[in-house]
Amino acid sequence: MKLHGYFRSSASYRVRIALNLKGLGVDHLPHHLRKGEQRDPGYLAINPQGLVPTLQDDRGTIITQSLAIIEWLDEIHPEPPLLPGDPLRRAHIRAFAQVLACDTHPVQNLKVLARLRQLGLPEEQVTNWAAWANREGLAACETLIAREPGPFCFGAAPTIADLCLIPQLANARRFGVDVGVFPRLLQAETAAKNLKAFADAAPDRQPDAE
Amino acid sequence: MKLHGYFRSSASYRVRIALNLKGLGVDHLPHHLRKGEQRDPGYLAINPQGLVPTLQDDRGTIITQSLAIIEWLDEIHPEPPLLPGDPLRRAHIRAFAQVLACDTHPVQNLKVLARLRQLGLPEEQVTNWAAWANREGLAACETLIAREPGPFCFGAAPTIADLCLIPQLANARRFGVDVGVFPRLLQAETAAKNLKAFADAAPDRQPDAE
Repeated sequence: MKLHGYFRSSASYRVRIALNLKGLGVDHLPHHLRKGEQRDPGYLAINPQGLVPTLQDDRGTIITQSLAIIEWLDEIHPEPPLLPGDPLRRAHIRAFAQVLACDTHPVQNLKVLARLRQLGLPEEQVTNWAAWANREGLAACETLIAREPGPFCFGAAPTIADLCLIPQLANARRFGVDVGVFPRLLQAETAAKNLKAFADAAPDRQPDAE
Repeated sequence: MKLHGYFRSSASYRVRIALNLKGLGVDHLPHHLRKGEQRDPGYLAINPQGLVPTLQDDRGTIITQSLAIIEWLDEIHPEPPLLPGDPLRRAHIRAFAQVLACDTHPVQNLKVLARLRQLGLPEEQVTNWAAWANREGLAACETLIAREPGPFCFGAAPTIADLCLIPQLANARRFGVDVGVFPRLLQAETAAKNLKAFADAAPDRQPDAE
C-alpha cells in the first residue's frame, strides 16, 4: 500500500498512527503542501480535493479522507480495534473524533488560512483564527471525556479519538494555544506518546520532515 | 427520543432524513441559532460545542455530531441500511460524506461566517467565502461519483452520502452557487427529493421554519 501524505498534515498523521497500531507497512509518498504539490494534475486524478492523505493499495484501490481510511483499516484489519463493539460507545468516540476532524481541523487548515491571507488579514489575525478554532474544539473535547477514567480518551487502549487528538494538540501548540488548561486531554496524550505507534508517526520522524 | 436541532441547520437536516428513512419518530426541540439559543447553559451541558444536532433518548443517553448519530442509528436500526456491507464501498461512501461534513459545511457555518464579519469583512466577501467552500466541496463530490450509475450517489438506494449531499446543495444555492455545473449531484438530488423521507425533512417543512 501507498500513503500519499505530508509530514505536518494532521490528517495524514492520524492515518500513520492507525497503520502503525495495526502493524501495516506502507510506502510513504510525500506531497509538499506548501509548495502546492497536492494540486498536480496526477494527484488530483486520485484525490479531486487536492488534499492529503490518500491511501492506494496494490490493486489500485483508492480511499480518501482520513476517517474513512481509518474505519476501513479497522474493518479489514480488526486487531487491535480502534472502535469498540458497543454502538453507543462507538457513537461517543466517533463524535469526539468528529469535533476535531469536522469542526476544528478544517477551519484551521492551510487552505483556509491561505484564503484569510488573500482577503488581506494580517498574520496576527490569521494565527488568532487558527488558535481560536483549536481552542474551541479542544475545550469541547475536554468536556466530552471529563468523566472518562482514561488514561486514553476512552479507556485503556487508543481509539480513533486519540488518533485525532494527538495531531490536533500539536497544531494547537503551533498556533500558541495554552493546552495546559486541558488536563484530561494531556493525560491521553501522555499515554499515547508512550506507545511506539504514536511516536513513530510524529511529523518530525517522517522522511519529508524539514 | 428527542432531536435538538434547527430548521435551517444542514447537520440537523441530515439526521432528520436518517430518522425518516428508518421510520423513527422523535420530538423536535428547536434551538434558534441566529438568536444564540444554542449557547444557553442548559444546552451546553448536553452539547459542549453549542452546536446542533444532539440526540437524546428516553434514558438520557446523549449523542452529538450528525455523522456519529447517523452511524449509531444505522447500527441499532439496520433497516433500511444507510451504508452497505462491503468495507471498500463503505469507505467510498464515508469519504464522500466527509468531504461535505468535514471540509465543506464547517468552513461555511454560522459560527465561521460570524467570525469573518467580526474581523471586518464586508457582507459580499462573507458570501463569497461561503460560496467558495460549497463550490470546492461539491466539485470534488461530483468527481468522486462521476462513474457511479446512480440514481442516488452510490447506487439504487440512499446512503449517508445522499444525507449529506441534499442539505449541502440547499446551502450552496442559498449562497448563490451555480449548482447546474454538477449534473451527477443533481441526478442524486432528484432521486432523493422523490422520497417522502427527504421531502419531510426539508427545512421549510419544520415547525420552527420562518
